[in-house]
Amino acid sequence: DYVEKGVAAGKAILCEKPIDLDLRRVDQCSRTIAGTDVPIQLGFNRRFDPGHRAARDAVLAGQIGEVRQIILTARDPAPPTREYCEASGGIFRDMTIHDFDLARFMLNEEPVEVFASASRLIEPTTMSEIGDYDTVMVFMRTADGRQCHINNSRSASYGYDQRVELLGSTGMVQSENRRPTELKFFDATRTAAAQPLLHFFLERYEESYIAEIGAFARCVRDGTRPEVGFEDGRAALVLADAAYLSLKERRLVRIEEVE
Amino acid sequence: DYVEKGVAAGKAILCEKPIDLDLRRVDQCSRTIAGTDVPIQLGFNRRFDPGHRAARDAVLAGQIGEVRQIILTARDPAPPTREYCEASGGIFRDMTIHDFDLARFMLNEEPVEVFASASRLIEPTTMSEIGDYDTVMVFMRTADGRQCHINNSRSASYGYDQRVELLGSTGMVQSENRRPTELKFFDATRTAAAQPLLHFFLERYEESYIAEIGAFARCVRDGTRPEVGFEDGRAALVLADAAYLSLKERRLVRIEEVE
Amino acid sequence: DYVEKGVAAGKAILCEKPIDLDLRRVDQCSRTIAGTDVPIQLGFNRRFDPGHRAARDAVLAGQIGEVRQIILTARDPAPPTREYCEASGGIFRDMTIHDFDLARFMLNEEPVEVFASASRLIEPTTMSEIGDYDTVMVFMRTADGRQCHINNSRSASYGYDQRVELLGSTGMVQSENRRPTELKFFDATRTAAAQPLLHFFLERYEESYIAEIGAFARCVRDGTRPEVGFEDGRAALVLADAAYLSLKERRLVRIEEVE
Amino acid sequence: DYVEKGVAAGKAILCEKPIDLDLRRVDQCSRTIAGTDVPIQLGFNRRFDPGHRAARDAVLAGQIGEVRQIILTARDPAPPTREYCEASGGIFRDMTIHDFDLARFMLNEEPVEVFASASRLIEPTTMSEIGDYDTVMVFMRTADGRQCHINNSRSASYGYDQRVELLGSTGMVQSENRRPTELKFFDATRTAAAQPLLHFFLERYEESYIAEIGAFARCVRDGTRPEVGFEDGRAALVLADAAYLSLKERRLVRIEEVE
Repeated sequence: DYVEKGVAAGKAILCEKPIDLDLRRVDQCSRTIAGTDVPIQLGFNRRFDPGHRAARDAVLAGQIGEVRQIILTARDPAPPTREYCEASGGIFRDMTIHDFDLARFMLNEEPVEVFASASRLIEPTTMSEIGDYDTVMVFMRTADGRQCHINNSRSASYGYDQRVELLGSTGMVQSENRRPTELKFFDATRTAAAQPLLHFFLERYEESYIAEIGAFARCVRDGTRPEVGFEDGRAALVLADAAYLSLKERRLVRIEEVE
Repeated sequence: DYVEKGVAAGKAILCEKPIDLDLRRVDQCSRTIAGTDVPIQLGFNRRFDPGHRAARDAVLAGQIGEVRQIILTARDPAPPTREYCEASGGIFRDMTIHDFDLARFMLNEEPVEVFASASRLIEPTTMSEIGDYDTVMVFMRTADGRQCHINNSRSASYGYDQRVELLGSTGMVQSENRRPTELKFFDATRTAAAQPLLHFFLERYEESYIAEIGAFARCVRDGTRPEVGFEDGRAALVLADAAYLSLKERRLVRIEEVE
Repeated sequence: DYVEKGVAAGKAILCEKPIDLDLRRVDQCSRTIAGTDVPIQLGFNRRFDPGHRAARDAVLAGQIGEVRQIILTARDPAPPTREYCEASGGIFRDMTIHDFDLARFMLNEEPVEVFASASRLIEPTTMSEIGDYDTVMVFMRTADGRQCHINNSRSASYGYDQRVELLGSTGMVQSENRRPTELKFFDATRTAAAQPLLHFFLERYEESYIAEIGAFARCVRDGTRPEVGFEDGRAALVLADAAYLSLKERRLVRIEEVE
Repeated sequence: DYVEKGVAAGKAILCEKPIDLDLRRVDQCSRTIAGTDVPIQLGFNRRFDPGHRAARDAVLAGQIGEVRQIILTARDPAPPTREYCEASGGIFRDMTIHDFDLARFMLNEEPVEVFASASRLIEPTTMSEIGDYDTVMVFMRTADGRQCHINNSRSASYGYDQRVELLGSTGMVQSENRRPTELKFFDATRTAAAQPLLHFFLERYEESYIAEIGAFARCVRDGTRPEVGFEDGRAALVLADAAYLSLKERRLVRIEEVE
């Protein structure tokens, strides 16, 4: 609704993900706003993280050759409330959607197949009652045969775990976790212990939010097209829908089946 | 054949993986040798790697709580010859079989479902001609819902990549790659560069082979049962067969389907 | 002069280091401003670096027991201009002064002895002409026998190198260098290469400057005494003077000799 | 005595450090064995450590340009017995002697000046009674002005700490500590904890002892001159003597003073 209202009012739009929980509503909106020239940027902030972006820049610069396998790890420090989960559209649309987008960002080629699996290992009772999951793995493949693995968990005792690994034909890059300091501690029982990971998305992705808003502001000022737009929001949602279909039918799903 | 002959001769047996490329032959052998009390140890050397074993010990000691997700990465520095591949029984039976075994070793619970995907990205022509693959991802799940991801590549420009990651309810452990020295190099273009990874399995797993043979020798001397036996060899082969069925039918396969 | 004027005007003062190049002028100023209650904070920003501060907090919390040895490494990416050096008062008063202060901050006990050595390895001609040095090592000892080593270089091809290491009776802590991302790069010739270190003090110590100014603002607001004051600025200058005397006479100098 | 007897008997000699506690006795021996062509190798095993050697190879290959500063860290996990210390000739001749040799190995230029400081922080009573020290720092300088810092401690709660750092005009290399595995542990209170360092010299320098003996065997077989010989043993002892003179007179000592 807000996107439609914004376009109607001629306002530039920075829209959080997902655009909507229902792909049909997204397509309806798409038709409504067709032809608009207001900048619409989707809030896939992780694309703006300096580490993740540098990984992709390495790919674009040919530093690892052709991408063959991608491993995306995203684990939250602790599960959200039941209320949050109930309104979220499910873990694939709420949490994995960031990884669906990152995969597209990193692969430079659209996934054509999705396989998904989901478990209830953290809060099994709550998850069963609301029909959601807390521990998932997703597999995707492009037409060229490139492979992508995503793992998500709604709980990681050791903090907010955000990693990207890209295997290419001539090299590999990893965008690893960040800590508040590079403090190392050595004693009789262990070595190289450090401070915990940056706690959660506000701390870990602070730089990405600043960069995201900066990019949006430049689009508004210069009238340029946002790097990550409405179609990217839709594409990630399509992958989430494909994941749900795969989960239901226990099989590899072609993206065109959910289009 | 050698296992049957060894048992008939009353000799202790250290058998390389896989026992045979054909599960029926394995089961025939199993019946033939039923009741023998000679030690039969399977050559799953990675179970004896100090790092991987310490990771599992951490699990058994409850240091990470209940295991929820396992990520196994195994990439060879360069593909084997065409002749080797043709005789190997295929990548799942030749290469992934180590990870099938490691997954069972780490999970402490049998996988009940397998999904596999395979691509030809390194040597597409050769792989097509011989009906094999060089780049694979496998997903497995236990009855309790624990998840395991395996990625394999027949080529990694940066060396022999062997990693184990175990996410538990109260912690996470990683058994990371090893290098010949801890040399770090800093110059104007990069920091923290080091020597390459240990080249291949003979270098990387040297300690594991020594420990494996030591364990076997102790079994022979003391008449004890090997830690990793004939049934473990069979179980890994069953998972490989399930992976092939999954690949063929593009769906999640229940282990019982291939038993 | 500015400190005296500020005090006369009743203004809170944030004074960059060193207070003055001449200890006698500092003492004269000290007498002039004696009894003032305006907050005077010295600009030893490194005390406010989250990593260095966490290292000291570990000491104060008893996590490494009694401090025995301190290793301070501070190397600039490239030498300053000749004009800068000529006006700087020399490397001990301009550059090492930060380490003199950090040593006092970390040791929790005053150094009583100083030995210094200095070389001209980077720009020997310029350094000889202006009577300065570009490569120095300093040793200090407290009354209890705790030892401190400082190494400084006006050039480090690999970037701005800022490290603190504290050896205690029950543990060791290191506050290590920071990089803009945790990107790791693996290829055939090297592994674990990453981005360069944060370039220079503005990037590396950005957080410390923010924290320093925040601490100063709180002092102004609350009328509290700054954590690092005029006397700390004087004490670091005394150590620099002792270093110059040591360099001249090629011997261990007692601090009381330069007081 | 054994060296003289060995030479008299025409036997190849692998002599542990130090040759003798008394430099005059070493020189007497030197005259006695002058002209011998039996291989005499000194037991400076650390020169054969793969990491330390790779660091020096980087220097020889010009990878870091001209060496400017060297930082050598060597700390034992726990102090030896009183009896051992009493017979050892003192910490500089027993422990630091390895670093004196490593410094010469890495600098490729002879130190011409030594400054030493020593404290009793670990076992002050015992050390006072026997006139020895347990915590030392040494500074050395070459004719070209290259600087070397050595720190030693008879106790390190976190294990056997052995590090070499070489700062050159175009780069820096570090040969860092080794651990038995690359296991990393993450939980709520810390991240990146690993196993302790390799316990002591037998574990940490196992490879160096094997390489050292191999090098000696090749000298015996081929009649070649050992890489590290009698003169190297003497030179390290001279540096130890200079350190004692510096400690006594609290000043920088020129090597020629103790020759």
